[in-house]
Amino acid sequence: MPPRRYAVRADEATHPDSMRATLAEFLSTFIFVFAGEGSVLALDKMYKDTTTTPARLVMVALAHALSLFAAVASSFNVSGGHVNPAVTFGALLGGRISLVRAVYYWVAQILGSIVACLLLLVTSGMRPAGFSVASNVGELRGLVLEIVLTYGLVHTVYGTAIDPKRGGLGAIAPLAIGLIVGANILVGGPFDGAAMNPARAFGPALVGWRWSNHWIYWVGPLIGGGLAGLIYEYMVISEEPPHHTHQPLAPEDY
Amino acid sequence: MPPRRYAVRADEATHPDSMRATLAEFLSTFIFVFAGEGSVLALDKMYKDTTTTPARLVMVALAHALSLFAAVASSFNVSGGHVNPAVTFGALLGGRISLVRAVYYWVAQILGSIVACLLLLVTSGMRPAGFSVASNVGELRGLVLEIVLTYGLVHTVYGTAIDPKRGGLGAIAPLAIGLIVGANILVGGPFDGAAMNPARAFGPALVGWRWSNHWIYWVGPLIGGGLAGLIYEYMVISEEPPHHTHQPLAPEDY
Amino acid sequence: MPPRRYAVRADEATHPDSMRATLAEFLSTFIFVFAGEGSVLALDKMYKDTTTTPARLVMVALAHALSLFAAVASSFNVSGGHVNPAVTFGALLGGRISLVRAVYYWVAQILGSIVACLLLLVTSGMRPAGFSVASNVGELRGLVLEIVLTYGLVHTVYGTAIDPKRGGLGAIAPLAIGLIVGANILVGGPFDGAAMNPARAFGPALVGWRWSNHWIYWVGPLIGGGLAGLIYEYMVISEEPPHHTHQPLAPEDY
Amino acid sequence: MPPRRYAVRADEATHPDSMRATLAEFLSTFIFVFAGEGSVLALDKMYKDTTTTPARLVMVALAHALSLFAAVASSFNVSGGHVNPAVTFGALLGGRISLVRAVYYWVAQILGSIVACLLLLVTSGMRPAGFSVASNVGELRGLVLEIVLTYGLVHTVYGTAIDPKRGGLGAIAPLAIGLIVGANILVGGPFDGAAMNPARAFGPALVGWRWSNHWIYWVGPLIGGGLAGLIYEYMVISEEPPHHTHQPLAPEDY
Repeated sequence: MPPRRYAVRADEATHPDSMRATLAEFLSTFIFVFAGEGSVLALDKMYKDTTTTPARLVMVALAHALSLFAAVASSFNVSGGHVNPAVTFGALLGGRISLVRAVYYWVAQILGSIVACLLLLVTSGMRPAGFSVASNVGELRGLVLEIVLTYGLVHTVYGTAIDPKRGGLGAIAPLAIGLIVGANILVGGPFDGAAMNPARAFGPALVGWRWSNHWIYWVGPLIGGGLAGLIYEYMVISEEPPHHTHQPLAPEDY
Repeated sequence: MPPRRYAVRADEATHPDSMRATLAEFLSTFIFVFAGEGSVLALDKMYKDTTTTPARLVMVALAHALSLFAAVASSFNVSGGHVNPAVTFGALLGGRISLVRAVYYWVAQILGSIVACLLLLVTSGMRPAGFSVASNVGELRGLVLEIVLTYGLVHTVYGTAIDPKRGGLGAIAPLAIGLIVGANILVGGPFDGAAMNPARAFGPALVGWRWSNHWIYWVGPLIGGGLAGLIYEYMVISEEPPHHTHQPLAPEDY
Repeated sequence: MPPRRYAVRADEATHPDSMRATLAEFLSTFIFVFAGEGSVLALDKMYKDTTTTPARLVMVALAHALSLFAAVASSFNVSGGHVNPAVTFGALLGGRISLVRAVYYWVAQILGSIVACLLLLVTSGMRPAGFSVASNVGELRGLVLEIVLTYGLVHTVYGTAIDPKRGGLGAIAPLAIGLIVGANILVGGPFDGAAMNPARAFGPALVGWRWSNHWIYWVGPLIGGGLAGLIYEYMVISEEPPHHTHQPLAPEDY
Repeated sequence: MPPRRYAVRADEATHPDSMRATLAEFLSTFIFVFAGEGSVLALDKMYKDTTTTPARLVMVALAHALSLFAAVASSFNVSGGHVNPAVTFGALLGGRISLVRAVYYWVAQILGSIVACLLLLVTSGMRPAGFSVASNVGELRGLVLEIVLTYGLVHTVYGTAIDPKRGGLGAIAPLAIGLIVGANILVGGPFDGAAMNPARAFGPALVGWRWSNHWIYWVGPLIGGGLAGLIYEYMVISEEPPHHTHQPLAPEDY
């Protein structure tokens, strides 16, 4: 099967719609990272002890799930509601977004995360915590975990928000996307933190200057998200090419 | 870009639709504050100890999130489902609601909160707790936190409930609005309580007569909500003025 | 304003649609009470200690909220998804359901609750716990609490599931109804258990033979639900009578 | 009443749509079991102690509920979003799916669960825990519990996702299905684990090689799911046969 190609609009790089979508990605990622990383700092504010307990894990998972839902919903009809470089990468490999648009989104997502962490530093007076692999887990297992968990996330994005046959389910796509992240944090939290999102991991790493194991939070999500995009696009979506894949896709078509 | 203006209906101040919308705001704010403030009193009923723990924070965040969802959903097609003076202020600065209507809503929201706190006093026999800044945080940080958290809330309102391009997402707007408040309480709770809503803060302050730090729960949410309204309205929504902005807006158009 | 009257179909009492709706109410109430009361027994199974803690309250509130959502959604287009005699009473006073249909529903709801509690007795080997007022609260305060909490519930039912102007919100009505019950349990749980539903309270009282304070779980919800039905129907819904109020209402019209 | 028959398409066994639906069931069951069983391993990772507490139960229930919602939503318009052999069995008895399709789904669901548990073994280094009956409960009570809890689940599937009169509720069917599983785990967790899904139970049993009480997790859910399918199909759905039951059903018709 030949790869599907995204026909880039001549003015893609400068059209106001691209700018608005990029701004929406920046703001949504800001809101999500502020709540997600902020909930980790709130835990530290309550106790010095940093042992993970079920109640703490539920708290952090809910903060990520509920804020990601709102962030994806807020930008869903403007930018497609990616809020995550791994989602953008999956959509790029599946031919659903142009490279120009993807690069814009990546920059916006990373900037949104950095600004959120800077504001958390100001308001909480605490150094962001970010992600690392638990001592007896090891980077390789952490890497595989990030691949698998991100696969589930981007598969959900494809099945509910991108698949042309999704029908009325599009209305609850942002909720499914937010909540699968919550569920996956309840699994991966005690092992490697379960980032599933390079931008979510990069902001706290930069502002808190904590880089140990950082590479797995880029490589894992990009492999998992890319795989999910390719498998869903070419094996689950019907082979008859949907008409719109050979035309410029406005974000509203998502 | 010239400011968008809301064309006020001549009979806006006396039309039965305005009265019904105002009553809906009163009742919805009553239901939300009764559950939100009530969950704090329920905590105190269970223990004398008032240390914040993850389980307590999850409990309070869920009580606010779930009741706000129901309160916004109940009034969504009658009044727009604001249930919060900061949301009304953002919609006013964005030109989506008239000043007359905004004043009516503010009065109704504040009254709903006061009545809820009076009934809580009667049923629980306990003095409402309200909001204050944690001892080692300080008012300035609390103020910035209220601005940022309310920004996220009103951005979500705009993106899911007001943006003319929101499409089928309108059906889940009340859920996104309720749940972003839950997520943000999981962040801001241990620092300043995370009100994001002057009416939510005012009722307990008046009935419980606790005024320390009270001003930040007015100034912060109004700045954050106003900023979100202006930025979303003028930078994210397409510049081509949507047709309905120069006509009287019935609440159903939200 | 004259009371709105529901035109009863001549064959209302014997039509297969009435039977199917009644069966749906029975099954949905069974599912809801099995999960709600079952979660209380699950707590007792884990510990002998019955002190209420935030984690236990969150667990019980979620069991009620999530199962009620599913129960209401399952019967929504068959019976209107009442699952609660107080909701049926509010709809009756508002003129949205006939007395014949209401009586059928009440019997089905009460039977569903009793069967659920009998099956819980069999599977858990434990005596159902049901509801009672905390020792230092008193029946009067418990009664007022049940009135206020049920008011919020039935207001939500009216605003999202019955109001002819609810529009696309109908799709999330069952979720709003389930989740406001969850929020209200987080408030009323430590005081009086927060039943908001006579059928929910009656099954465990009968099977567990615990009748202290039982009357408030009938009087409170019926007053609160009736008030909500009357206020929403006559003060929030537009005065122009919607066309369908003078015709037989099929449950799908809800 | 004669049994409703599903007219099998001549090429049902080899048509690409059947293959895509089967792949979607495999991937969705993989995502669900990875999160569900993974959350149990995450608990063990945090503590050696395996006593069930309310916070642990909430954590496991949420992991199952939120991931099942995403898994069902992702495959809803491709395969009908069964993700559970008991759901497939109920749909088969109700005449909503062909036997060929059901067998394909069962194989896919079981394989998805096995692969998820193998990957959990690799990433966590821990032996899957699976399900068993609490020491003082007994297999008979566990069996009845699985029947009742699965009845509630498949009744919800029928009421929100299959009933031709479900209307706009189809959009929230995956959420209702996910959340009733969460609620039921909060009930059955301390007694027998509350699998309600033979594939969910089989993967950990095989990979962790734990077979005690295993039969009840097949017999219980199949009886409960089959009963729910028959009762809903023949007693709740209107007797007038809906037109599409005598034609091949495309998955989108669900």
